[in-house]
Amino acid sequence: MVLRGVYPGRFQPPHLGHLHTIKWALDKVDELIIVVGTAQESHTLSNPFTAGERIVMIKEGLRDFNIDLNRVYIVPVADIYMNAVWVHYVAMLVPSFRYAISRNPLVVRLFKEAGYDVLIPPAYNRELYNSTRIRKLILQGNSEWKKLVSPSIARIIESIDGVSRIVEIAGRD
Amino acid sequence: MVLRGVYPGRFQPPHLGHLHTIKWALDKVDELIIVVGTAQESHTLSNPFTAGERIVMIKEGLRDFNIDLNRVYIVPVADIYMNAVWVHYVAMLVPSFRYAISRNPLVVRLFKEAGYDVLIPPAYNRELYNSTRIRKLILQGNSEWKKLVSPSIARIIESIDGVSRIVEIAGRD
Amino acid sequence: MVLRGVYPGRFQPPHLGHLHTIKWALDKVDELIIVVGTAQESHTLSNPFTAGERIVMIKEGLRDFNIDLNRVYIVPVADIYMNAVWVHYVAMLVPSFRYAISRNPLVVRLFKEAGYDVLIPPAYNRELYNSTRIRKLILQGNSEWKKLVSPSIARIIESIDGVSRIVEIAGRD
Amino acid sequence: MVLRGVYPGRFQPPHLGHLHTIKWALDKVDELIIVVGTAQESHTLSNPFTAGERIVMIKEGLRDFNIDLNRVYIVPVADIYMNAVWVHYVAMLVPSFRYAISRNPLVVRLFKEAGYDVLIPPAYNRELYNSTRIRKLILQGNSEWKKLVSPSIARIIESIDGVSRIVEIAGRD
Amino acid sequence: MVLRGVYPGRFQPPHLGHLHTIKWALDKVDELIIVVGTAQESHTLSNPFTAGERIVMIKEGLRDFNIDLNRVYIVPVADIYMNAVWVHYVAMLVPSFRYAISRNPLVVRLFKEAGYDVLIPPAYNRELYNSTRIRKLILQGNSEWKKLVSPSIARIIESIDGVSRIVEIAGRD
Amino acid sequence: MVLRGVYPGRFQPPHLGHLHTIKWALDKVDELIIVVGTAQESHTLSNPFTAGERIVMIKEGLRDFNIDLNRVYIVPVADIYMNAVWVHYVAMLVPSFRYAISRNPLVVRLFKEAGYDVLIPPAYNRELYNSTRIRKLILQGNSEWKKLVSPSIARIIESIDGVSRIVEIAGRD
Repeated sequence: MVLRGVYPGRFQPPHLGHLHTIKWALDKVDELIIVVGTAQESHTLSNPFTAGERIVMIKEGLRDFNIDLNRVYIVPVADIYMNAVWVHYVAMLVPSFRYAISRNPLVVRLFKEAGYDVLIPPAYNRELYNSTRIRKLILQGNSEWKKLVSPSIARIIESIDGVSRIVEIAGRD
Repeated sequence: MVLRGVYPGRFQPPHLGHLHTIKWALDKVDELIIVVGTAQESHTLSNPFTAGERIVMIKEGLRDFNIDLNRVYIVPVADIYMNAVWVHYVAMLVPSFRYAISRNPLVVRLFKEAGYDVLIPPAYNRELYNSTRIRKLILQGNSEWKKLVSPSIARIIESIDGVSRIVEIAGRD
Repeated sequence: MVLRGVYPGRFQPPHLGHLHTIKWALDKVDELIIVVGTAQESHTLSNPFTAGERIVMIKEGLRDFNIDLNRVYIVPVADIYMNAVWVHYVAMLVPSFRYAISRNPLVVRLFKEAGYDVLIPPAYNRELYNSTRIRKLILQGNSEWKKLVSPSIARIIESIDGVSRIVEIAGRD
Repeated sequence: MVLRGVYPGRFQPPHLGHLHTIKWALDKVDELIIVVGTAQESHTLSNPFTAGERIVMIKEGLRDFNIDLNRVYIVPVADIYMNAVWVHYVAMLVPSFRYAISRNPLVVRLFKEAGYDVLIPPAYNRELYNSTRIRKLILQGNSEWKKLVSPSIARIIESIDGVSRIVEIAGRD
Repeated sequence: MVLRGVYPGRFQPPHLGHLHTIKWALDKVDELIIVVGTAQESHTLSNPFTAGERIVMIKEGLRDFNIDLNRVYIVPVADIYMNAVWVHYVAMLVPSFRYAISRNPLVVRLFKEAGYDVLIPPAYNRELYNSTRIRKLILQGNSEWKKLVSPSIARIIESIDGVSRIVEIAGRD
Repeated sequence: MVLRGVYPGRFQPPHLGHLHTIKWALDKVDELIIVVGTAQESHTLSNPFTAGERIVMIKEGLRDFNIDLNRVYIVPVADIYMNAVWVHYVAMLVPSFRYAISRNPLVVRLFKEAGYDVLIPPAYNRELYNSTRIRKLILQGNSEWKKLVSPSIARIIESIDGVSRIVEIAGRD
């Protein structure tokens, strides 16, 4: 029986902390399901990238880290706006799993209430590696953000014109 | 630049015809995005399996066929019930692509109207290999259906109790 | 600990068979939750009555049967169009429960897959007492239907002009 | 106070019967609101044209009939799938009105239950002029359909490649 | 003819002020419909409890106050996000009513615009008895909140582990 | 071939700046499609007016400005909450167009990404003429707002009791 874990996030964008967490999780489970949450949203300051763009970033980031793609599923999941149902909605959309991997208190709570075991990964220098900070650096024109993601992810963000997208949507009428 | 194609279907369940089409498509593109459509529906006679179950079936079927999983994305997509928007909605949820692969006239039309090129794969003995027929055989208790899918897919359907699911939901009050 | 059961139906309209089933269920559980399903639909031949109208019919029907209303919850539930999530969605909207009461094969299957016990009530002369037949009799102008529901339910249907509603919406342009 | 009427339809496509009804209605009210219903659907055999395409067809058809566009609103309205709410949902999306204009029994019933007066227009040779028949003629390759719509509507359907759209989506995999 | 009133709220959680308002309303109407609004939301700081949990709390709170449950309907209603339609949407889901009971200015306005009479109940020490304050006390670990609800409601909140739910979902990643 | 432009806004309410922009746009295109966005929302401080009310205001405002209504479409569009799809969703609901007219950076970006040309109209004294300021003046009981809209728009807002609506919904329980 394959032992699977599900790892939900918004990945706006994915960064080195995410990639380390994925590596950590793959030591604990046979296969990991990466849920790309809030899949319906893009082109906002909190969620600049489409689900499709985030999927490619994650896949190429995993390649940068030499992670075996055969052991990973990447699944976009749109919001359902019903917390009490959300875990079961995710379970419908992804392969069956036993563990949830998350440090988010709400996410941990929801999976526990639904009867799943939760694995809490170590924090990986969260002051440095977090997506909110990366989006802020991009907005400020500070190229430091490139050090916080893997090389392929930086390349993809630039190739899809992601920097100017964030700057433009921050503009005002 | 990676050349990608998108191949939409419901895969209820995936069968040998699907797997041959995927193989055919991977000769034409660098990477293939398999869209598991009508992802919200399950436990009906037309759509017995959840999106998550179909994702696993496709992945294991690809393994049976020795297809390189690194070149494949499998993405569940719920219905949006707006044909004129559907292609753009898919494009939001999957990596950017250039080609659509489909024999379905509506799907072909929608991708063409949205400006995509369409590759029409050869029919692979469609009287034999089609999901409607497979579901009917399962319902009739005819184990012939196992020859129409790959060994792993047959094994998964049995391991999730798929046969009795189809039989039960066909029952009447 | 209060032992509760959930009894889902569309109740278009509720009839004597439903009322007998409710009585039967209240011998098995402390409290019964009657789920008025497809709550969003009305004014169609399959679903002529609004959820609010059906709630009143059920309540008054229970009074006709001298059933203790203190032991009953009546809860309208709109369709969610995701079978794999439906039971959990119902569970969000109603008091916690242990048993599901149903003869419908799909409903039975869904509750079992979600880990609930299912109580299957005896059929109560289903050829006679079924809502489809009652709607057909109303449409044909055959007043026999009044014998298939309790007196208060017949009175409510007439007071809301239910007979002419069904006849009118069956009309054609 | 401006006296307005609302005239709902799907207009797939609009035909001479519709245009005559609009003319008739404009003798009864100061301003007419034409509701283009099921606005979300297109590219199906029952609803081949988008709401936007139908709006243009209606406007140009009105021009063909020398109807004063200043007295007409054309408003697309997506389905809400709740009959008991539908009239109020339409009322939110259109200018305030006093009359509904319709021959459809369900539509008549819903407006009456919501407290509106209903004007029932005369049938305008409905065996000849009806959209279902027009779509069927198009599908059969019978150019008779052009006589059932106004010249501009025929021209628009051809300019958007509407005939081959209907033929293609009728195709099978 | 039964005279009914509808009393909408979120009841997160229900408190003594709500119960006094319900008592007050039952002096004015034959039957009261308690609408449990924002029924789809739970596990947030503003809406910690599911609709089902709130229904049980209200019912048991009514028992604590010796209110006749036969005269009360408790109906969960999910948000529809269209203020101009909301009253009619509620009317579809509940028994027919003549009065709305509310002190909320928007709610009062919406019912009046829809043609209903509104009864404005007296404020019952609102600085003390309000759900926002109760949730804040729970979050602060201040057990004063138990005095603001009825004994059964306090017991239910504890039995469903409500205190730690609120504390946990207030946590940060 | 008719050259059309689409001009999206919320128009809560429409003001002289909007009307000047429409005039400006009609110098550039044959026909202008005015999209009344966030059509589902009303009775909030940000969106007090229904789509239907806004449509009438715009039409009468255009009359005040002697703008030829034959060259204008006014189309309500509800939010879809998917930025990456929004332009295509608008395109489904309105006549085909070539240009988008907007100063809003997100809107400009979305139309450009979807392949449309964008015309950026001059700002028309935006400190003075903007809807947020008008709603604030109304709320403060400052009748200065009437000078910021055209005479018919002021008259309509008063005839629908718009001032007291805004004041009331700003009230607190």
